[in-house]
Amino acid sequence: MKKDTLLVQANLHKNWIKKYAEIRNHSVEICSPLEIEDYVVQPIVDVSPPKWHLGHTTWFFETFILQPNFPGYEVFDPQYNFVFNSYYETIGARVIRTDRGNLSRPSVSDVFKYREYVDQKMDEFLQNGYLTESLESLLELGLNHEQQHQELLATDIKYILGHNPLFPAYKKEAFSKKETSGNSEMIGVSEGIYEIGFKGEGFCFDNELGRHKVYLNDFKICSHLVTNKEYLEFIEAGGYEDFRHWHAEGWDWVKQNHAKSPLYWHYIDGKWMNYTLNGLQEIDLEEAVCHISFFEASAFASWKGKRLPTEAEWEVASAHFDWGKRWEWTNSAYLPYPGYKKEAGAVGEYNGKFMVNQMVLRGASIATPPGHSRNTYRNFFQTHLQWQFTGIRLAQ
Amino acid sequence: MKKDTLLVQANLHKNWIKKYAEIRNHSVEICSPLEIEDYVVQPIVDVSPPKWHLGHTTWFFETFILQPNFPGYEVFDPQYNFVFNSYYETIGARVIRTDRGNLSRPSVSDVFKYREYVDQKMDEFLQNGYLTESLESLLELGLNHEQQHQELLATDIKYILGHNPLFPAYKKEAFSKKETSGNSEMIGVSEGIYEIGFKGEGFCFDNELGRHKVYLNDFKICSHLVTNKEYLEFIEAGGYEDFRHWHAEGWDWVKQNHAKSPLYWHYIDGKWMNYTLNGLQEIDLEEAVCHISFFEASAFASWKGKRLPTEAEWEVASAHFDWGKRWEWTNSAYLPYPGYKKEAGAVGEYNGKFMVNQMVLRGASIATPPGHSRNTYRNFFQTHLQWQFTGIRLAQ
Amino acid sequence: MKKDTLLVQANLHKNWIKKYAEIRNHSVEICSPLEIEDYVVQPIVDVSPPKWHLGHTTWFFETFILQPNFPGYEVFDPQYNFVFNSYYETIGARVIRTDRGNLSRPSVSDVFKYREYVDQKMDEFLQNGYLTESLESLLELGLNHEQQHQELLATDIKYILGHNPLFPAYKKEAFSKKETSGNSEMIGVSEGIYEIGFKGEGFCFDNELGRHKVYLNDFKICSHLVTNKEYLEFIEAGGYEDFRHWHAEGWDWVKQNHAKSPLYWHYIDGKWMNYTLNGLQEIDLEEAVCHISFFEASAFASWKGKRLPTEAEWEVASAHFDWGKRWEWTNSAYLPYPGYKKEAGAVGEYNGKFMVNQMVLRGASIATPPGHSRNTYRNFFQTHLQWQFTGIRLAQ
Amino acid sequence: MKKDTLLVQANLHKNWIKKYAEIRNHSVEICSPLEIEDYVVQPIVDVSPPKWHLGHTTWFFETFILQPNFPGYEVFDPQYNFVFNSYYETIGARVIRTDRGNLSRPSVSDVFKYREYVDQKMDEFLQNGYLTESLESLLELGLNHEQQHQELLATDIKYILGHNPLFPAYKKEAFSKKETSGNSEMIGVSEGIYEIGFKGEGFCFDNELGRHKVYLNDFKICSHLVTNKEYLEFIEAGGYEDFRHWHAEGWDWVKQNHAKSPLYWHYIDGKWMNYTLNGLQEIDLEEAVCHISFFEASAFASWKGKRLPTEAEWEVASAHFDWGKRWEWTNSAYLPYPGYKKEAGAVGEYNGKFMVNQMVLRGASIATPPGHSRNTYRNFFQTHLQWQFTGIRLAQ
Repeated sequence: MKKDTLLVQANLHKNWIKKYAEIRNHSVEICSPLEIEDYVVQPIVDVSPPKWHLGHTTWFFETFILQPNFPGYEVFDPQYNFVFNSYYETIGARVIRTDRGNLSRPSVSDVFKYREYVDQKMDEFLQNGYLTESLESLLELGLNHEQQHQELLATDIKYILGHNPLFPAYKKEAFSKKETSGNSEMIGVSEGIYEIGFKGEGFCFDNELGRHKVYLNDFKICSHLVTNKEYLEFIEAGGYEDFRHWHAEGWDWVKQNHAKSPLYWHYIDGKWMNYTLNGLQEIDLEEAVCHISFFEASAFASWKGKRLPTEAEWEVASAHFDWGKRWEWTNSAYLPYPGYKKEAGAVGEYNGKFMVNQMVLRGASIATPPGHSRNTYRNFFQTHLQWQFTGIRLAQ
Repeated sequence: MKKDTLLVQANLHKNWIKKYAEIRNHSVEICSPLEIEDYVVQPIVDVSPPKWHLGHTTWFFETFILQPNFPGYEVFDPQYNFVFNSYYETIGARVIRTDRGNLSRPSVSDVFKYREYVDQKMDEFLQNGYLTESLESLLELGLNHEQQHQELLATDIKYILGHNPLFPAYKKEAFSKKETSGNSEMIGVSEGIYEIGFKGEGFCFDNELGRHKVYLNDFKICSHLVTNKEYLEFIEAGGYEDFRHWHAEGWDWVKQNHAKSPLYWHYIDGKWMNYTLNGLQEIDLEEAVCHISFFEASAFASWKGKRLPTEAEWEVASAHFDWGKRWEWTNSAYLPYPGYKKEAGAVGEYNGKFMVNQMVLRGASIATPPGHSRNTYRNFFQTHLQWQFTGIRLAQ
Repeated sequence: MKKDTLLVQANLHKNWIKKYAEIRNHSVEICSPLEIEDYVVQPIVDVSPPKWHLGHTTWFFETFILQPNFPGYEVFDPQYNFVFNSYYETIGARVIRTDRGNLSRPSVSDVFKYREYVDQKMDEFLQNGYLTESLESLLELGLNHEQQHQELLATDIKYILGHNPLFPAYKKEAFSKKETSGNSEMIGVSEGIYEIGFKGEGFCFDNELGRHKVYLNDFKICSHLVTNKEYLEFIEAGGYEDFRHWHAEGWDWVKQNHAKSPLYWHYIDGKWMNYTLNGLQEIDLEEAVCHISFFEASAFASWKGKRLPTEAEWEVASAHFDWGKRWEWTNSAYLPYPGYKKEAGAVGEYNGKFMVNQMVLRGASIATPPGHSRNTYRNFFQTHLQWQFTGIRLAQ
Repeated sequence: MKKDTLLVQANLHKNWIKKYAEIRNHSVEICSPLEIEDYVVQPIVDVSPPKWHLGHTTWFFETFILQPNFPGYEVFDPQYNFVFNSYYETIGARVIRTDRGNLSRPSVSDVFKYREYVDQKMDEFLQNGYLTESLESLLELGLNHEQQHQELLATDIKYILGHNPLFPAYKKEAFSKKETSGNSEMIGVSEGIYEIGFKGEGFCFDNELGRHKVYLNDFKICSHLVTNKEYLEFIEAGGYEDFRHWHAEGWDWVKQNHAKSPLYWHYIDGKWMNYTLNGLQEIDLEEAVCHISFFEASAFASWKGKRLPTEAEWEVASAHFDWGKRWEWTNSAYLPYPGYKKEAGAVGEYNGKFMVNQMVLRGASIATPPGHSRNTYRNFFQTHLQWQFTGIRLAQ
């Protein structure tokens, strides 16, 4: 999912100062096991250098809150807009995405100074009552934006370490504990009109609105995620060599990339090994399969004689199963809900412009920060991407 | 739309012999104004050489009907399977799509001999009662397949001639007569449960099934297509330079391709000219805009403060407006209807494997052969393609 | 070799009318076995459609002789300059090389009309005494240019037919008769000062001038070309799998292209077959190996413990062996001779601008037209190209 | 020039221990102004991360000297062979060149530990008399190899800092002092036989051997390098827009890369600025032009009505002018001297396999380490590369 949003629902007053500090601090903690060198590299275009994430989330608060609303605020470095703007066309020229890994400067230490400077100013800003009601939603958006990048920090760090020939471990409990799946049962849901989309108080992104009616046919959905064991059966049954289970575009992807397994799986000396944040380990058969593309999820489902759920089915059934370990691919394209309107200005670029040629994922993953998930959340990625903590729940 | 299908509904007995002859003959007529050289070239991967279309549709009858069902049938040339198989993985190796324009042989005259041979055999096959009930649906599929390629013949011939620096005219009435649009009114449809998908007798493709309920909110849809005049206003208002109206992927497409107008428009000596099948002509402002990508249709709608309809909205409202001049881009992704199942074997490759990263178009165009359109028809293309006779109907 | 030149040496009066007619007619004869479709396609960028060669050589006479020098001359079609200009930047915009195979028009019949029109005008021009002494050299250049394209017609026709899955034969004696090589002896040449470069009367290209001294060490050169038998030994000894014999760039070429043999060789049912202009045939072991890249020639020489000759060595020794069946790769880069000057204007673009990153070939091939070879001729191609009639003569 | 060589001439005994320490230490000094982040990135494929250079030169001593010749030697880390092997196919699998910038590990600190470990072992090795006479040449090769990478460290660091939008200065005297050129006179050399190639004692690379006779015509060569002032005149006269001065391949390069000036030049607010190792500065008109490709050098020479010298001309005349500030492009292709033989084994891959499609540069540059230049040295690069300290000396 492209990582930048729209706060739509007004929020009651909260202890913003404390919340700001906690969330900002969590980003720093995620990076604490890294060497300086790990902050810099960009092995593929989708993976950004950790120092870029740290700078970009800071730039969000500087650009959208402090600069226009804090009288007398001076930007930390005028050139950082060029370096840390992600894709907001409204905000001017920027380093193109593929070049992020070419930038040795600003140094990691300068990026941390930048964070400290902005955090100090934000603290002053909040302490001195500059947060009007209308800015609250923007602040909340900034914090949710930071949380989205926390998940990306986890996935990108895993990619950087997991694609190093030395396979270094991340050495930190978070995201690296084993999560086993269980025996699946089919949960039935009856035909009828249902409502989906966000409702109630609290934060949501603009793409979760407005709540609306959908008509669903009878369907069944699995209580548990597909395990490594089941996925290994698919591999061993020749799933990657049988075009019949794949979309035409997926089959091209398999052949061009010589795809043979989920990302991070390595067949070494007759055994399937898996790079985890604790280093290279034997596959855990009971664990939910992870790091698969939409193409793979869909092919697996076809091989099983089942299908992926739609996002509406998923949302309607979500109360009846445990979710949150894997982002679950649905067979719904990422499109606007009825009545969707994008906001004016730069924040309007957050979600709407990505609503083409991507598929929706529902749920959350072990890399999703605490407090950043709900059953109406619409994550989205392109169909060939594997580097998120993605998994499969079957339906029929 | 990828051009190959599944007959699902049984069909009552008809005069198959006559129908076969008429439809097969229509393909030949479409090609009658061509020079031999025009049959051979492939200027872009999506455009196939006309002789390939003529051979491929013939190969369909030979491979799926005559070879397995007509005792004693001898294939015209065993190597033609390699040359004229389009993408059916089940049927073995094939010339890759990008190479079709490299093949000077079989010659056009050999391709016509191939057609005559197969038509002669089909006639014998039908005259002698080999058409069992279960083969009827396959025959009907073959004829619908031929009709789909008739539309592609029209779009591909236009591309071949329209990208030649000499701008030769096609010199034939069909597809080249002017079709003007008119003043648009908004047609309102009320919230509620509706049914979409094919019903009744006669032929449909598997992707139009099964008929199912959808829940729609109140919406309005235009009675007429967007005209060249309106689209020109978008161009002159700087629509191609304003990223705010475009999907991020569409904006990349604009910049990479220096897109500035619909396909076939040329700005020459201060005037917008348009390559038509009658040659290069001044833009007709009253005509419905044609040859635009999904990205352009969507950007235009955004600029107008409106949106594209969903395919369900389009189908439900379709009785209230005139359609059939342009394939109309919807904002629905091409995905399976509830309960969709693909058939076993090669014909199962017809539709299902394309159900990712494409958008649905509804209606039909001036290039659609007579008798090959209905309001449940689901056409589909990738979002950057312009070479079909595509247009825009707005909704809100 | 890029096909366009500079006449430098004055020529005595000759029967230009007869010579013009003979040479022009030979191009038409080369094409006589073709189907119309064969004239149109361009399977790779280096191979031009035969009709393009026929038009381009005609355009040369129209553009450089008739238009500026024949009062009242009217161009056949003003748009043909755009279509048939090859690479002369001086002469304005042109169809880019990769697009030549996308042009179905002008038709083959129009191209022949163009030839007839220009030939008729040239005849009038010559009959009526417009050929001044200073134009003679340009006319001779035009005829040599036509002969260079005659060789390209042969190589390009072979590529077009030889890459068609039906492997059609060209069915014409020329270029297709078998030429066997023989047992090789080493011819010794003694150290000393030698002269190379064109001398005497008659035509030569500017790149053969001026004749100059070179200092050569003792060397030996083979009396015969490497045969298919010897080359097969290289293949069977694993020559394509052993990086030690290859340039680094050549080794990348082998891996990227999965190179395993000369062009047109196919290993079928346990036998090495060879596409020839008579169709697919078993390898003739006694024939000189043909259609190899510089990388392959150089790797073969290294495997044999020998090397390729320099162009100076080749020229000095050329009186002592038979040559003319294969263009022989030398280990000399294509660079200007001492004192080389390029002419002003468009004909100055003929040779000089290609003098970088190409290697010299010496001799001639079975596809070289009669009267178009001499031992000072400097042919040149890029190091990865195989489609010319190229071979290997070893030195040490 | 690809950076790895062959010691051919035997060397008298020297104080190897001191020399080893001095040269190895110089590499570390070059890197001393860097931030850790600067060691890691690889903005283009030709530029390697500084930590890679430091590791690779160390790997050379470990792999070719210690491992086979020092009893009981244990490799520092068995996986480093994979990481730090550059291109030696003989020595096994390696990280592909484009991926060097994706490796955050080994960390810079680990690479320095690796250097210390190997340096310690080399010291023991040398102190304890393991250096046989036959190993001396390999040791000297290793030190020359290290010096070649010292020059690359300078050029690569400049590229990394100079392509950062913050334009950080390197802040170190070396390589950053201004070197002005002067007024040029033409030095004449008479026709005759000359000898070129290495002779005498001391180290040389295998590609400088064997010394051999060449025949040269009369020529003249400039006493000084082309200045920025002269090059600016070329730019202002439209040199980059006039195809007549460029090789066809060079002209393609200009258009594809929108080349308008030497690397590191920026036209800002009406002034030509130049990124130097002291940061962004106004162009110094008296300085010798730097960072130009062969294509640019050759086009400039053509515009001036002159030419580049051959490498033989350069070497013969070199006693008559000052050289060493810029690597000077010659118009000689990088090819073997008569009688050139490559050594067996991995060191044989040092030079010979690059002898195709590259041009020779002669002299040395301000980035060449002290003691690493001689007038027979043959540097070589591909024709489009600008990032070395390259310049122009004209001849006629």
